[in-house]
Amino acid sequence: MDVAILAHEQFPDRAKTAVGVLRYADHDVVAVLDRENAGRRVADFLPDVQDAPIVESVDDVPEPFDALLVGIAPIGGGFEESWRPDVRGALERGCGVVSGLHYFLEEDAEFRTLAAEHGGDIWDVRKPPDDLTVAEGRAAEVAADVVLTVGTDCSTGKMTASVELVAAADARGIDAAFVPTGQTGIVIEDWGIPIDRTVSDFTAGAVERMVRERGDDHELLVVEGQGAITHPAYSAVTCGILHGAMPDALVLCHEAGREVVHGYESFPIPAVSDVGRLYEDLARPVRETSVAAGCLNTATLDGDGAARDVLSEYGDAIDAPATDPVRFDADEILDPLL
Amino acid sequence: MDVAILAHEQFPDRAKTAVGVLRYADHDVVAVLDRENAGRRVADFLPDVQDAPIVESVDDVPEPFDALLVGIAPIGGGFEESWRPDVRGALERGCGVVSGLHYFLEEDAEFRTLAAEHGGDIWDVRKPPDDLTVAEGRAAEVAADVVLTVGTDCSTGKMTASVELVAAADARGIDAAFVPTGQTGIVIEDWGIPIDRTVSDFTAGAVERMVRERGDDHELLVVEGQGAITHPAYSAVTCGILHGAMPDALVLCHEAGREVVHGYESFPIPAVSDVGRLYEDLARPVRETSVAAGCLNTATLDGDGAARDVLSEYGDAIDAPATDPVRFDADEILDPLL
Repeated sequence: MDVAILAHEQFPDRAKTAVGVLRYADHDVVAVLDRENAGRRVADFLPDVQDAPIVESVDDVPEPFDALLVGIAPIGGGFEESWRPDVRGALERGCGVVSGLHYFLEEDAEFRTLAAEHGGDIWDVRKPPDDLTVAEGRAAEVAADVVLTVGTDCSTGKMTASVELVAAADARGIDAAFVPTGQTGIVIEDWGIPIDRTVSDFTAGAVERMVRERGDDHELLVVEGQGAITHPAYSAVTCGILHGAMPDALVLCHEAGREVVHGYESFPIPAVSDVGRLYEDLARPVRETSVAAGCLNTATLDGDGAARDVLSEYGDAIDAPATDPVRFDADEILDPLL
Repeated sequence: MDVAILAHEQFPDRAKTAVGVLRYADHDVVAVLDRENAGRRVADFLPDVQDAPIVESVDDVPEPFDALLVGIAPIGGGFEESWRPDVRGALERGCGVVSGLHYFLEEDAEFRTLAAEHGGDIWDVRKPPDDLTVAEGRAAEVAADVVLTVGTDCSTGKMTASVELVAAADARGIDAAFVPTGQTGIVIEDWGIPIDRTVSDFTAGAVERMVRERGDDHELLVVEGQGAITHPAYSAVTCGILHGAMPDALVLCHEAGREVVHGYESFPIPAVSDVGRLYEDLARPVRETSVAAGCLNTATLDGDGAARDVLSEYGDAIDAPATDPVRFDADEILDPLL
């Protein structure tokens, strides 16, 4: 699919979904919309992802394309009215629109009308299916090995670790698949359920449904975790994923140097060894599993030597092999997960 | 409020909400609708709750009343069409309707029209407010001591324990309030949020909102827990309540003799001591707390002596005082919670 990505005034640092798609999706990105950086190119900021021109508005996207992807989210997930001409323009060209906003574009009267008139589809990625049910406790029955990435906090690289692990397995000839649980992962994979938007009674059931839908067609599933079991606000989501996925192994994701919960700075993050043990203890009544590997985001560290040093400490603390899957290679931690 | 309770073919054993209201609510029950037991009285089945006649249909409710309460739920929570004449009849008399079904009566065209015509209100108890947000990690700031009932499984008496603890505190002159999280509790209290229906991201936030709304006006809050942290399907709800409530103390509720998860019989319930420790370990990163007391449902045991024996074993296992708040008195475990 050829896509244009809307990322006004936030590319690349605050455009997590946009960057995720540029880096990991099979989609061809024909342009990034960012009125602050129009005239430059993606490669000026991110040399290691697919390149594309950065343009002012949807009118400046030269080629035909299939969909406009809203690749940013303001605080609160609302719709920023200054984006309306771009969404309107895409729909008028007959393109689809893909959005991970809390505000559902399909419920916007103008957009719905334009989509119907011009034949484009609106996909609100954050809208869960309306036929979810409670879990049956059967995810462990699938043929695939199931690996779940879990974290010490939000934004510790669980999605990145998941995608990199699938790529590393593929490179070894293992038939692996990614099970996304958040909007960026869903856009990358073109499939999935936004677990943080499900009714809490059905959270585990939604994950179980995805695992059972794909688990007999692959050798390895890597389920994207969310939040942290120790998080003051998001632990319900994390817990539902842990019990719904019934994983064979866990990968504990942490960011080097992070000591308090992001946005909740009065809550210290416990020692990583304690967090890992808590995931294992909480999983056990439903599924015996263990932290078999770790991923550490070392982006703030200067030089591979320093990164190797903290990785070694981290691996010792969680008693499992650890890597930074972006700086180094997820293949380094694949063996204990198979 | 004078209420009639619909409980067709399920009274009393499968009419949890109906029995809860008869036992604990301030409402005066003018009749119970159960076409299988019409002509008998509540007291024929339940000698220790308020008495009322059992009638065939809403047409047989003699007195004026304020609301018809749907006091049962079929598997799945749908609406049983054979109840339609009763709901219709109540609305035609200008009464309100209170329902804890998953199927929202307010979205039923006939009922909505009748309610508008005759001035009755429809309250779908299971519909959460639409302005919920994420938790801020601030429930512990309230003036009240916060006690949370937690369980080893669903249906282990958490709601009953919560209501009985509030009554015991009231009897001692302590200003205590009940924070309900499920439909029966909400109907009893005439207030509350159905936590199992909230968006999973807002589960902790919904509990925090209730605790903060009432926590400065009372000396003691008793928050009704849901599910179990070890449950294959419902643990997300439980975890959100645990972290959202930030309780000062936990009361662990268990049913004597129950060894496997109800409805999920391939999952053993871990030793009660392990379950208690897991609640404490999971709470700790957000709020240091401990299992300070236990409640045990001993209804299946013959005689108070046998009940005292298993209570003593249970108390030893969880290392805290324990009682059966129905057979004995919640006052027995109040001291360690204050």
